[in-house]
Amino acid sequence: MIFQFQIDKQSGNARAGTLTTARGVIQTPIFMPVGTAGTVKALIQEELHECGAQIILGNTYHLYLRPGMEVIRQFSGLHRFMHWNGPILTDSGGFQIFSLAKISKTTEQGFDFQSHIDGSRHLITPEDAVDIQTIMGADIIMCLDSCIPWPADEHQAKDALELTTRWAVRCKTRWDAIPECRNSLFGIVQGGMFPHLREQSAEALTALDFPGYALGGLSVGEPKELMMETAAHSLPLLPDEKPKYIMGVGTPEDLVELVAMGADMFDCVMPTRNARNGQLFTSTGTVNINNARFKTDTDPVDPDCGCYACRHYSRAYLHHLYRSRELLSYRLNTIHNLHYYLHLMQTMRTAILNDAFDQFKSGFYARRAKD
Amino acid sequence: MIFQFQIDKQSGNARAGTLTTARGVIQTPIFMPVGTAGTVKALIQEELHECGAQIILGNTYHLYLRPGMEVIRQFSGLHRFMHWNGPILTDSGGFQIFSLAKISKTTEQGFDFQSHIDGSRHLITPEDAVDIQTIMGADIIMCLDSCIPWPADEHQAKDALELTTRWAVRCKTRWDAIPECRNSLFGIVQGGMFPHLREQSAEALTALDFPGYALGGLSVGEPKELMMETAAHSLPLLPDEKPKYIMGVGTPEDLVELVAMGADMFDCVMPTRNARNGQLFTSTGTVNINNARFKTDTDPVDPDCGCYACRHYSRAYLHHLYRSRELLSYRLNTIHNLHYYLHLMQTMRTAILNDAFDQFKSGFYARRAKD
Repeated sequence: MIFQFQIDKQSGNARAGTLTTARGVIQTPIFMPVGTAGTVKALIQEELHECGAQIILGNTYHLYLRPGMEVIRQFSGLHRFMHWNGPILTDSGGFQIFSLAKISKTTEQGFDFQSHIDGSRHLITPEDAVDIQTIMGADIIMCLDSCIPWPADEHQAKDALELTTRWAVRCKTRWDAIPECRNSLFGIVQGGMFPHLREQSAEALTALDFPGYALGGLSVGEPKELMMETAAHSLPLLPDEKPKYIMGVGTPEDLVELVAMGADMFDCVMPTRNARNGQLFTSTGTVNINNARFKTDTDPVDPDCGCYACRHYSRAYLHHLYRSRELLSYRLNTIHNLHYYLHLMQTMRTAILNDAFDQFKSGFYARRAKD
Repeated sequence: MIFQFQIDKQSGNARAGTLTTARGVIQTPIFMPVGTAGTVKALIQEELHECGAQIILGNTYHLYLRPGMEVIRQFSGLHRFMHWNGPILTDSGGFQIFSLAKISKTTEQGFDFQSHIDGSRHLITPEDAVDIQTIMGADIIMCLDSCIPWPADEHQAKDALELTTRWAVRCKTRWDAIPECRNSLFGIVQGGMFPHLREQSAEALTALDFPGYALGGLSVGEPKELMMETAAHSLPLLPDEKPKYIMGVGTPEDLVELVAMGADMFDCVMPTRNARNGQLFTSTGTVNINNARFKTDTDPVDPDCGCYACRHYSRAYLHHLYRSRELLSYRLNTIHNLHYYLHLMQTMRTAILNDAFDQFKSGFYARRAKD
């Protein structure tokens, strides 16, 4: 296993780190663009690099169903199949089985579910999740976890976290047995919005000594304040010498707040999905490019932005493309939003290295308040 | 007006030429990718250049309706609006009014039609067509012509061509009066599939001494043989020292046959539209990437192709993207097909320069027969 994590600097609780994997070095805090089905929608590798992407995420549930493992095996993994040479993190599929699959039966053995694509029946055990992600050739893989909806009662949350813990033991055992292992396995802390359950989960997983840790079960519909409270309570429970990854979060403001609390890694469909819905992130806040006020506007979306879309196209053109439902609209909007997210992470890293995270944070909010 | 055309070499009737416009030199025979709404669907300028595009086409009807002339004026034309620095040819809008608009009333004055987008009512005269295309900043603009369906009777065809001729006179008069004119106006020969009407049209338009000539009204549903007969009869009627443009045509085989007859310029939605339907052109024929036999195929679409898609991706990946209706599918397929078309034109030009067009043609068909 080639995997190292070091903290380069702290500013308050915010951390700038360096994560070394077999396929490259990742400077944290980092945002991972989501490439659900073996493609960060509409983009190619060169554009992802230009946006500042250092690592991308693949969804095991989607890839397992389509193109399927026979195809992925044919290419010795996802990298060659999708033409991405940098590090990849795959999720375990647990969250998508919970949120997308047609029928999901959770037993001690694993998940029994039906594909949302063709209704076919599948069983995924914790051992399968490790094997599948290893065949994918992912550089960071995740334990199979059991997710719960929000709100959930304490009993439900406790059952799910305890199952997640037992599955984590099985994942770790399977992963430890991989010959010439080139990936790293992260544990996922669950426990809903109950502080003592998060503590129970973190304690059990920490004892297993994973290379990294994630907080799962956040941003599942709970009020923002509750998510932030849960994250603030949970992040210090994770070992400080390991990368701390918050799954499925969030808005630019969320990232700023969570980095301030000490989180290192994030993924979220927000920049890419919202791009396809015409919502663009800028240093002064979000705009909807569909708005009629952009019809004749010759300025770029964000005059401070250095992305390909802002360097070459106007708000009027992006407005026209979006109104016309042109393919180029989704592409340029996605480039802009990913550049925004990744540039934000870089800016935060620089601020941390300069021990100036608080000043950064004041400036971040001041610019947004002005508009 | 900056516009020159010279024949560099002939091989049989096939011509290799050089067309000089204000925005660049075009080496013929040339295929013009169609950028209907101010975008060659899914692609950016750099990709078009890499595919070998020297000039692209914009559809006046679409652009006039959306984004509309107020927006185009704001950007001093289409080039800056859509970020394309090379030459642009715009059509007059006549064919789209005929084929797309909700109601079209053709009078001596011009076309009275309703937008297919919002039902709004518009009148376009021949003078308007010249003015609109000039505001677009197109380098080559087209006369407003009156199109007919196929089959059409001789009376209908004669009426339409005579109206087209009277409109051509009005277009020419308007164009002659443009101060500091930077574009070139092409006349469009009509006359349906009636040889003597094509002669009548060509004679009348030739007398007006346009910088270039097009054959309109082909590929409108007539049998392939009839189209080829009509083109073969009509091309020699156009002045040999001027560029000869065949509008809206065609398949790779069509282009080879028509270049052999002396045609210099082409446009067609086929490579781009078919790409979005999964049909890919290769040196051995066309393939549908949706076909199940590509599921685990690690080869590129065309091992002889140097396009970005063939250099970096497999048939299996393109199959997966297409099956998953991923945005990247349309983009990579479009790159491949445009590269195929433009590379075919370059190959034909080279063959003509070597006075070896017949050998090229034999090889072209032999490779396709093999598969």
